[in-house]
Amino acid sequence: MQLTATALPGLPEVTEGDDLAAILRAGLERAAITPAASDVLVVAQKIVSKAEGRMVALADVAPSPKAEELAAKAQKDPRVVELILRESREVLRCVPGVIVVEDRRGFVMANAGIDASNVAGSDERVLLLPVDPDASARRLADALGLAVVINDSFGRAWRMGTCGTAIGVAGIPALIDLRGRPDRMGRSMLTSELAFADEIAAAGSLLMGQGDEGRPVVHLRGVPQVVGDGRAADLVRPRKMDLFR
Amino acid sequence: MQLTATALPGLPEVTEGDDLAAILRAGLERAAITPAASDVLVVAQKIVSKAEGRMVALADVAPSPKAEELAAKAQKDPRVVELILRESREVLRCVPGVIVVEDRRGFVMANAGIDASNVAGSDERVLLLPVDPDASARRLADALGLAVVINDSFGRAWRMGTCGTAIGVAGIPALIDLRGRPDRMGRSMLTSELAFADEIAAAGSLLMGQGDEGRPVVHLRGVPQVVGDGRAADLVRPRKMDLFR
Repeated sequence: MQLTATALPGLPEVTEGDDLAAILRAGLERAAITPAASDVLVVAQKIVSKAEGRMVALADVAPSPKAEELAAKAQKDPRVVELILRESREVLRCVPGVIVVEDRRGFVMANAGIDASNVAGSDERVLLLPVDPDASARRLADALGLAVVINDSFGRAWRMGTCGTAIGVAGIPALIDLRGRPDRMGRSMLTSELAFADEIAAAGSLLMGQGDEGRPVVHLRGVPQVVGDGRAADLVRPRKMDLFR
Repeated sequence: MQLTATALPGLPEVTEGDDLAAILRAGLERAAITPAASDVLVVAQKIVSKAEGRMVALADVAPSPKAEELAAKAQKDPRVVELILRESREVLRCVPGVIVVEDRRGFVMANAGIDASNVAGSDERVLLLPVDPDASARRLADALGLAVVINDSFGRAWRMGTCGTAIGVAGIPALIDLRGRPDRMGRSMLTSELAFADEIAAAGSLLMGQGDEGRPVVHLRGVPQVVGDGRAADLVRPRKMDLFR
């Protein structure tokens, strides 16, 4: 049983309005990969956001009094904090350097995933998450004929560092329910659900690197085949099951 | 840039006292893999624990009054709860079905990682984590001549499902500090640390599956080369940086 992960070479800088599916198709061709329905393409959030025009010029953002107040606490630019608030449903924590929120998509994450790094142009622009990353993944999957996971780097409550995490999913289950499935010894299992799409996002992220590498798309062949078509929304823990808010 | 992950075929059932390094060496040979220092072997916690004799017969466990009390709250076997307490420094949450603890190694996790599934023999035995998984990883890495990550499935505070996570590391950095490293646009990065070993654990876990598959060891070739020799302990968020306890 073998899995091969290939970072697509020679991808151009993506900008607003680009046909991302066409860019990815050309990247697969350059890598001499013919997409199969059982393949998974892991796509960095940044290039999806760029293609979808989610770049915001901070000069156009007027911070509210609430944003000014949180910005002082978080020691952040009030205009960035204003965008974090607009992208969020709830602020969970605010300390110097980080505002942990539940974003509009339900993801609990630092700074609503708003990123100032690797954005071409001025320092005065930031990049928001795609409006509906599950829908973005669906469009790419339909255009390319394989499964798609859009990944972003998430911090974790009790562990250092960020880990690739699925924010958009199409063509595979996001979550695999193992409840009641007997293990090798014929007993039912304690570990009942597997965050399949998050493991795929992490595997892709491993090859993407961070910083100056510029490898935003990773093709996976040999992912264990599980029937289903999930969404990253399936990975959001319902509030009533949240023990740490 | 390409990564290949191979699940080692034909591994035997591991039991107490087995020479795990010899079993893994034979597994690599069967897969026709000659280990290289730049390779990473991802090894499931279960087989490390089994080889190290971390199986406990519940008949030998006398639950304390504290364990009885928590067991009633968690709706768990009081003897299992006694073991969870012995393996832990602190109980963070206790609700029906799960006790979230900081374990003796510093990991915040459900049920101190104690697992009743896939343990050969009676239902009356459970498997504890290795006493010092970083040391276990070190021994295997030294014996085999490649990097080793011992992985376990962790739940997450705000996401459904479990994800492969590093509990033992040797021969690679666990955490990569990107602070101050310029991104492609020459700006410093917001995402400052990468949980490298956790992404490796997740990538390995993807091929291991759960339940009845029995693929507890995955060999990775082509992992981006980063100089360093970290420990899973590096991934534990220090208490003073913990916002969610």
